[in-house]
Amino acid sequence: MSWDTPIRKELDLVEEEIWKNVDSKQALLMDICMHVIGAGGKRIRPGLALLAYKAVGGKSAPNIIGIAAAFELIHSATLIHDDINDSGELRRGRVAAYKKFGVQKALIAGDFLFVRSFRLGGYWNQKVVEIISEACTATAESEILQQAYEFDPNTRLETYLKIIEGKTAMSMWAACKVGAYLGEGAQRQIEHIGQFGLNVGMAFQIVDDMLDINGNVKDLGKPKGVDLTDGKPTLPLMIAMKDKKVGKRLSAIFVKEKKGKEEVEEALELVLRTDALERSHKKACGFADKALDHLSTIKDSSYKESMQQLVESILNRKM
Amino acid sequence: MSWDTPIRKELDLVEEEIWKNVDSKQALLMDICMHVIGAGGKRIRPGLALLAYKAVGGKSAPNIIGIAAAFELIHSATLIHDDINDSGELRRGRVAAYKKFGVQKALIAGDFLFVRSFRLGGYWNQKVVEIISEACTATAESEILQQAYEFDPNTRLETYLKIIEGKTAMSMWAACKVGAYLGEGAQRQIEHIGQFGLNVGMAFQIVDDMLDINGNVKDLGKPKGVDLTDGKPTLPLMIAMKDKKVGKRLSAIFVKEKKGKEEVEEALELVLRTDALERSHKKACGFADKALDHLSTIKDSSYKESMQQLVESILNRKM
Repeated sequence: MSWDTPIRKELDLVEEEIWKNVDSKQALLMDICMHVIGAGGKRIRPGLALLAYKAVGGKSAPNIIGIAAAFELIHSATLIHDDINDSGELRRGRVAAYKKFGVQKALIAGDFLFVRSFRLGGYWNQKVVEIISEACTATAESEILQQAYEFDPNTRLETYLKIIEGKTAMSMWAACKVGAYLGEGAQRQIEHIGQFGLNVGMAFQIVDDMLDINGNVKDLGKPKGVDLTDGKPTLPLMIAMKDKKVGKRLSAIFVKEKKGKEEVEEALELVLRTDALERSHKKACGFADKALDHLSTIKDSSYKESMQQLVESILNRKM
Repeated sequence: MSWDTPIRKELDLVEEEIWKNVDSKQALLMDICMHVIGAGGKRIRPGLALLAYKAVGGKSAPNIIGIAAAFELIHSATLIHDDINDSGELRRGRVAAYKKFGVQKALIAGDFLFVRSFRLGGYWNQKVVEIISEACTATAESEILQQAYEFDPNTRLETYLKIIEGKTAMSMWAACKVGAYLGEGAQRQIEHIGQFGLNVGMAFQIVDDMLDINGNVKDLGKPKGVDLTDGKPTLPLMIAMKDKKVGKRLSAIFVKEKKGKEEVEEALELVLRTDALERSHKKACGFADKALDHLSTIKDSSYKESMQQLVESILNRKM
């Protein structure tokens, strides 16, 4: 059974809502959005919002589907702009939007998706907009922070955690918090479910960073070694760069702005010779455990089980 | 007396509100925003929102200052992203943000400004958000339309008008409409003031396109001949390309993707030999007249006078 089984019906409605919102007079704009959104993706943010909503007993909030859809629209906008910034070649198994349609059009398509989320926001109350914009602000700020530490082999763990919190965890925090809020959970539950989402996001991103080293390119739908190539200090790279045997050589490759294909392959091999992936996995498990702890305020249900299952599947994911 | 005299106090509050909203933990993000927003700019959109609000008798809407500020935040976000897309070198007399801070950081700063407008939107009602997002959608769509007609010397007047409507006029339409709506104008007044803004925007953009040909570089704060260089079909260029004497040569230069400095200068000279600027000015005056006609539903006041004065100053502007 997949983690999203108990919300399958709602996720189908979210999907409809997403498509309704990328409607445009400019067919090309729709094409770009469909290229990105239609490539699949795990719909984790809408899923989290729905599960949090249901887990606290949410029944009739008219906006939950629209809000869940907005999380995916915002996420997709961020992906499109991220790929421009990182020169990412592939995304969800497809050529990155800016590669297929050009930077100019992809930039506009990202803006268009932001606008459509903004429009949906008109139907929500202030609290919801506040939570979502806090997460979006964190995304932008963490991008700037991440850029400041590019090619820096001495990046501290604290900085890395701050970056992935803003980049990934805050949007999951927001999805969970908004879901629990709309489901009319108790204040304490809303906070705990928010923290569940935050910790899920931290685990998710660490696993993501591990997959960039030992993932299967076909499963990933994108190449490996991208963080290393781009000089992004990820947890496994940071640990391996401190390794007594391979750290020095790995760092020497990491700091190079231009890296040959062989160098990247060599560097990935070097990481595999250390305990960096094992220790990263432990760190991810630590966040996963924290996430699960935060569910203790929620009474048992198929939705809570799904949230636990989602944590499990994130730790074991191959893509 | 300047057009904004009767709303000087409110515009100062808008300015404060703008600065409050670019606050960030990442100093660099603030620097980029300040670079763009602090370069001045005419604050026409906030001004239009305030004038429309006051002209219909608006007195106590708590959100009018925040909304006026949001128009400038959105406008600035658009400028930052536009400059990336058009490789614009200068903006408001300063180096374009992406030139100074790099494309990656400028892209994020634009997104950040969108997010901050979105956050402000949480305080507004659905109608306001709907109007503003309709304008933002039009901006994105017109960018795509504009790109489709780049280097096309046979672009039709109808297409050009559609492009500038989305690019410039719709945001002025929205500013006016929202202002009149918040000021609790009658439905008929709200529609007319919206049409006033739309026509002001059309006149504004035509004059802008004329200044790209005969403007003073120092006044403009940006180079001349940019549209021609980028292959953007503007009204004066389109008229001149149909001219019996110079049209053929001008078109031949216009369609070249790479143009030498001499070619651009030659082309600008060719336009000046035609009646293209005169005819463009007439077209702008036509829109200005339409704008003024729409004010007939509004009773006389210093605010209405300011709106009339703004139209005048747009027709005569040098920057």
